[in-house]
Amino acid sequence: MQLAIITGTVTATAKDPQLVGLKLLVADVTNERGEVLEPAIVVADACGAGQGDQVIIARGSSARMPKGVANSPVDASAIAIVEHVSTSQKPKTANHGE
Amino acid sequence: MQLAIITGTVTATAKDPQLVGLKLLVADVTNERGEVLEPAIVVADACGAGQGDQVIIARGSSARMPKGVANSPVDASAIAIVEHVSTSQKPKTANHGE
Amino acid sequence: MQLAIITGTVTATAKDPQLVGLKLLVADVTNERGEVLEPAIVVADACGAGQGDQVIIARGSSARMPKGVANSPVDASAIAIVEHVSTSQKPKTANHGE
Amino acid sequence: MQLAIITGTVTATAKDPQLVGLKLLVADVTNERGEVLEPAIVVADACGAGQGDQVIIARGSSARMPKGVANSPVDASAIAIVEHVSTSQKPKTANHGE
Amino acid sequence: MQLAIITGTVTATAKDPQLVGLKLLVADVTNERGEVLEPAIVVADACGAGQGDQVIIARGSSARMPKGVANSPVDASAIAIVEHVSTSQKPKTANHGE
Repeated sequence: MQLAIITGTVTATAKDPQLVGLKLLVADVTNERGEVLEPAIVVADACGAGQGDQVIIARGSSARMPKGVANSPVDASAIAIVEHVSTSQKPKTANHGE
Repeated sequence: MQLAIITGTVTATAKDPQLVGLKLLVADVTNERGEVLEPAIVVADACGAGQGDQVIIARGSSARMPKGVANSPVDASAIAIVEHVSTSQKPKTANHGE
Repeated sequence: MQLAIITGTVTATAKDPQLVGLKLLVADVTNERGEVLEPAIVVADACGAGQGDQVIIARGSSARMPKGVANSPVDASAIAIVEHVSTSQKPKTANHGE
Repeated sequence: MQLAIITGTVTATAKDPQLVGLKLLVADVTNERGEVLEPAIVVADACGAGQGDQVIIARGSSARMPKGVANSPVDASAIAIVEHVSTSQKPKTANHGE
Repeated sequence: MQLAIITGTVTATAKDPQLVGLKLLVADVTNERGEVLEPAIVVADACGAGQGDQVIIARGSSARMPKGVANSPVDASAIAIVEHVSTSQKPKTANHGE
């Protein structure tokens, strides 16, 4: 999954019937410091998220696992609103061979 | 999903039988300001889109969810024509730990 | 899907039984002007393509949809030989919000 | 799969019911020398990993294969704690044609 | 699929039960000339590959198609040992429209 910030919403006219009723949000994928890694993806809301919220997004077929979006043509979903991200400086010494 | 602009069409001669009858479009993936993030992908039309339209595209297995393209060898579909994208400046203060 | 040019072939010795009988091609993913976006992927031939042909490729689980490659460990297939790609200059004015 | 270093944890409030009980970790994808290739992805813990551990992660639908995460909206899982990575200088002479 | 060179092996302690018995290899994804496109991915061996071998790898759900790795949390597999890659200079004149 990835961290993301909800930056807006999208409305659509002609759309697949399985999208009707889904809230579509615009989100920027970020790292743990909120720096943008990938801008402006569109995600289905599966956790009641709104603009400014930091969320966890799932992509690919996993994005269709939440109840409300099953069988929808959805390849990215906001699955949780983040409460806290706790990271430390990562050790630079990976366990690698010779 | 991603935002995209339809830039053209593709016609094919020898093709998989499950592609027959599908309209194949060329699209540029963009951010919310229409700046191109990924050029020239080919998408199946699942929402009646045409050249110049701003659309939402789904990729991967999700692209096969719309009725008309189920079981087709299609990994990207235009699933909705965009009416309006509303975004604000995203907050730069992500909720992150120490 | 993506546009690609077939640049060669691959032969393999030890291989998964489900690959036997499949023609494996080397392809460069390109934009609509034939400029290479991603070099040297290996695709299963599902449309009778040969060296120099411009094709449409499907990736991921969609690559296993054509009859001949179902259940094969194949993540990219050439699904159509391109007859014509028609694109115009894309409008730079995307429909976006404030 | 990819090598990664666990750098922290994420807690979430509103979340999909299928996420309840899963431990969500932050990880940096690395090469075999621990150099970061992709920062700050969120992975479900399927092997008892903790901060600082070097792990193997699976992404996409494969991330839902471990028992504890089946049917969860999870697109990345830590599936093993690395004991040892042994690599040599790779030969620069690939077997390629003319 | 992609071409890759096997550069080493990974051993793991705590791991998903479905990984037990699988040989995990480190591989560099390359182009047809052996130049590295993506370093240090971890692949399950489905074709008896060893260090220095040039292989074809499948990624995503397709990586779980070989018999030995079905239902494993594996998102990349070495599916064939390359015998010969034959490519020519690709034509720069793609068939594109106006």
